[in-house]
Amino acid sequence: MELFATKGYEATTVDEIAAAAGVARRTFFRHFRSKEEAIFPDHDDTLIRAEAVLNAAPAHEHPLDTVCRGIKEVMKMYAARPEISVARYKLTREVPTLREAEIASVARYERLFTRYLLGHFDEHAHADDANDDPLLAEVAASAVVTAHNHVLRRWLRAGGQGDVEAQLDHAFAIVRRTFGTGIGAGRESAPRTSPATTVDHGEVLVTVARTDAPLDEVMRTIEQALRART
Amino acid sequence: MELFATKGYEATTVDEIAAAAGVARRTFFRHFRSKEEAIFPDHDDTLIRAEAVLNAAPAHEHPLDTVCRGIKEVMKMYAARPEISVARYKLTREVPTLREAEIASVARYERLFTRYLLGHFDEHAHADDANDDPLLAEVAASAVVTAHNHVLRRWLRAGGQGDVEAQLDHAFAIVRRTFGTGIGAGRESAPRTSPATTVDHGEVLVTVARTDAPLDEVMRTIEQALRART
Repeated sequence: MELFATKGYEATTVDEIAAAAGVARRTFFRHFRSKEEAIFPDHDDTLIRAEAVLNAAPAHEHPLDTVCRGIKEVMKMYAARPEISVARYKLTREVPTLREAEIASVARYERLFTRYLLGHFDEHAHADDANDDPLLAEVAASAVVTAHNHVLRRWLRAGGQGDVEAQLDHAFAIVRRTFGTGIGAGRESAPRTSPATTVDHGEVLVTVARTDAPLDEVMRTIEQALRART
Repeated sequence: MELFATKGYEATTVDEIAAAAGVARRTFFRHFRSKEEAIFPDHDDTLIRAEAVLNAAPAHEHPLDTVCRGIKEVMKMYAARPEISVARYKLTREVPTLREAEIASVARYERLFTRYLLGHFDEHAHADDANDDPLLAEVAASAVVTAHNHVLRRWLRAGGQGDVEAQLDHAFAIVRRTFGTGIGAGRESAPRTSPATTVDHGEVLVTVARTDAPLDEVMRTIEQALRART
């Protein structure tokens, strides 16, 4: 990182890196295939850890929450070594090869999460029409990854200062609220056994009522929820 | 395209392309800087057209709808020449340089739309907390672009058959429904002048009521909306 920062990425040779690390050129190439690989984040291992999080998810967990926990593995990797992450981020913005490699990794997480969401669209989350599930899965996965990258980028630009995991949880809460009401609003949030359900959002109370339910039952459900608040 | 399909992209030279087109090598380079540029979709012009759509948007239009109309310019470019688009898609999947260029273009649209949404977060759409607006703008822009790319990819894989613009409108309706309820649920959908508002979703009726509003007023609003349905 020091060499890249002072000499520039392109101008730094593997020989110089090996010399600075006090190892032979051959030793460098036993560990890394290229200069790029030596500083690139370890997305291969992180992808495996993220997948393990998905596979070990409790059955009752909302798949969107599972995916959020999955991508947290990426944030943890960056947060474990803030100085390296910040220096590498600066380099990534300047070196097209690194930027392209980074973009390709993002696509790998998105594919993993899209597949997971699609396989777990059931009572928790889905489109109104099952034919739209692949679309909604991809959009939701992309939303989680975009939110993660937004928080990560902000943290890197701020020099790696602050509690990035707490910021990430806040971002996920926003995504979750957006998609939590949207996904399955027609097929699921319309309750099958009761005429209406209510969700308390603090300042406001959101009610989803079946339009074919008896009016007095719907009104009783809403009134109860509102009374509980006032 | 014929040369690329028969000889392979890498093996085809500019001289061969020029010869097949019946022009001199020099003429080729007056039009294109490289082999890649000769077949790459015209994202520069499309980006300008998409931006023009945003700039000419009527004041009353929801910014998410505006952005959906903006990215439709991309779909129109692909749909205008289905055979070329399908052949190029196959090539893009095989040639890393083309794939990377494609990914970089996607990022340009996302940035354009994120900026637009952020500049138009007002009474139409925004996060509950204004500090979250940049995050929500980026997530929403990415959702629109992901939905577009999903429909485009599906259409290209199906050989460019079917009414892709109608499929795109359907996808946008899903994104719009997801984000339409989520964005601004706290700051805006909680009505300032009335105790409650209702949105009719067909099978269900969604009500957002202020929890500090007089109970009887809230109940009257909901009852009226439900009576209008039954």
